[in-house]
Amino acid sequence: MAAGPNAALVGDPGARARLATPCLLLEADAFEHNLAAMMELVRGSGRQLRPHVKAHKCTAIARRQLEAGAVGLCCATVREAEVMAAAGLTGILVTSPVTAPGMVERLARAHDRVGDLALVVDSEAGLETLSAAGVSAERPLGVVVEIDVGQGRTGVTRPEDAVRLARRTLDPPQLRYRGVQAYYGHLQHVPAYADRKAKAAEQWARLQPFLDALRAEGLAPEIVTGGGTGTCYLDLEDGPFTEIQPGSYLFMDKQYRAVELAPGGTAPFRTSLAVAARVISANQPDLVVLDAGIKAMATDAGPALVASGASPDAAYQFMGDEHGGLRFSTPAARPRVGDLVTLVAPHCDPTVNLHDWFHVMQDGRLVDLWPIDARGY
Amino acid sequence: MAAGPNAALVGDPGARARLATPCLLLEADAFEHNLAAMMELVRGSGRQLRPHVKAHKCTAIARRQLEAGAVGLCCATVREAEVMAAAGLTGILVTSPVTAPGMVERLARAHDRVGDLALVVDSEAGLETLSAAGVSAERPLGVVVEIDVGQGRTGVTRPEDAVRLARRTLDPPQLRYRGVQAYYGHLQHVPAYADRKAKAAEQWARLQPFLDALRAEGLAPEIVTGGGTGTCYLDLEDGPFTEIQPGSYLFMDKQYRAVELAPGGTAPFRTSLAVAARVISANQPDLVVLDAGIKAMATDAGPALVASGASPDAAYQFMGDEHGGLRFSTPAARPRVGDLVTLVAPHCDPTVNLHDWFHVMQDGRLVDLWPIDARGY
Repeated sequence: MAAGPNAALVGDPGARARLATPCLLLEADAFEHNLAAMMELVRGSGRQLRPHVKAHKCTAIARRQLEAGAVGLCCATVREAEVMAAAGLTGILVTSPVTAPGMVERLARAHDRVGDLALVVDSEAGLETLSAAGVSAERPLGVVVEIDVGQGRTGVTRPEDAVRLARRTLDPPQLRYRGVQAYYGHLQHVPAYADRKAKAAEQWARLQPFLDALRAEGLAPEIVTGGGTGTCYLDLEDGPFTEIQPGSYLFMDKQYRAVELAPGGTAPFRTSLAVAARVISANQPDLVVLDAGIKAMATDAGPALVASGASPDAAYQFMGDEHGGLRFSTPAARPRVGDLVTLVAPHCDPTVNLHDWFHVMQDGRLVDLWPIDARGY
Repeated sequence: MAAGPNAALVGDPGARARLATPCLLLEADAFEHNLAAMMELVRGSGRQLRPHVKAHKCTAIARRQLEAGAVGLCCATVREAEVMAAAGLTGILVTSPVTAPGMVERLARAHDRVGDLALVVDSEAGLETLSAAGVSAERPLGVVVEIDVGQGRTGVTRPEDAVRLARRTLDPPQLRYRGVQAYYGHLQHVPAYADRKAKAAEQWARLQPFLDALRAEGLAPEIVTGGGTGTCYLDLEDGPFTEIQPGSYLFMDKQYRAVELAPGGTAPFRTSLAVAARVISANQPDLVVLDAGIKAMATDAGPALVASGASPDAAYQFMGDEHGGLRFSTPAARPRVGDLVTLVAPHCDPTVNLHDWFHVMQDGRLVDLWPIDARGY
């Protein structure tokens, strides 16, 4: 059971029809394309890529990102960071404050393995917890001061607080000041490029006094990190960042398909991720019931779209923990009991978090299984 | 790592303050109370209890339910059934149709272990798949015909279809007809008892012609199963069921706390489940940020409620995959960075599905860890 119920289907030409469902499919060609396309964009910008592990939680994918040229990996949780470090993957930046002593100690142990782990901090209390984490002064833990530039969530809100926190990282020999983070998650899904760019420019303007204050105090940041898939084009063109932290570009979910990522909609990313589901019931005239519901896909971004196996006009609806419905305007077009249908995930990150394996598909064949090994805890 | 990051805290009097978060807490006293209270209700009714594993996905809890007097266990997925069977737990009924040959074969292997597994069917195609699953005729697989009495999801919609399917189970020696399922998930959260009872009575009336037709054909069902936590009082009082299949009564989430389960609100169930989260940031005047967001709690039932660690008036909001906000009308009442806050889960089943462990708490101490071993796949 360690490799999941579909392990025996790897290499089987009939795998697609026989998959245990619901499960996550990853189209290898689209995935490889996205991996290379983002790297090409970043290389042309003179900036760096530190992609976000929270989108995939998978060491196999993280390793491919590093091999492609990423400077490191962003992690949202302690678990993600410890699994990446255990796999020998380096350049980890933990992008949320961690304020529990035991959890910071776990990060310190992960840092012991890789030597270059860093994490964000936005409070004096958080900094004190870091200082007490038992890190060796010979290999200090990296610290990035988080700045709120408009999301109203984490991050310090005044330049003097950023300066004070940055200065305090200089004292304990166990810590090493690396720079600042200014993330704007609330802009990533603004549909029109021009609107998103105008809003991002407001945030960049808010960041400027923080950067000025830090530089004036001799605390010029080596790293200025932020941005995501939604803002990657404009961040790489004009943004204040030395590096960006997108994750979803590998998959392209329903939300991001609705966003004009590049001017004129010229972004090269393709949808590589799908949820495979099976028709388990077809007793209603305009409906078939699938085995993929609330526990197979996150509900925060509305219903899924049909990718294959049924008309793209069929309307998906959540119908329970393990049930989803597809409604058809033309009853004759319904798939039959036992048929496989694939769906575009509404929101990739929390959907991936519900699964244990990526089923890597190429030319309709299951070619590999990649464990989603950094989920949980 | 096999036992999770909090394993070392079992028995530690300071465990609550030092928990790695986010995590699920299970208050042992309330849990034990709920376990016994439902059993007492069912015993007084002359009916049976086959509680639903999908709420907890945990063999340790399922074993307690059987020891308390449950006649078996309902499972929503093949994975749940195979994990329960592997633990030697019996009386498994799979309550969703399974239509993929490989998945039915897994159920057949689970049945080989326990000998009394049954599953619902609502189509000819599904029945053919069951017949071909390679079960021994000496220990036939149980079949329960699912009937749609108003939810409009799975289940046959006409009495003649129920009769036809039931009759067809009599032919293959590998199958054994056990009865019918008539589930009405859409009624479970109707707030007022009288309203819910009136709606349930409509469904019971729709079920009657199915039962009459089956009995007239010599296909009287041994099992008539349905009902959940929301309808348990009325199902046990007047319903057509020989057994009920509630699950959430063990936990009592935000949704069920808003339901008048018994006439006059006299239901004995207590909230036993909480999501523990930690304050990671407090730089906004009316807000603190917790480390519990979309990946710690299902979003389908709206925001969480505060259970402990902050004013119950504080308003929780989802703020991202790993972030939640608590907004305060009185800034002075905010908890501090590093403090633990516990939350009532909006919807227990898909929230449990996001976690790997129940942290069993008694008198503020962590006394045990129960793995959520049937999640995944």
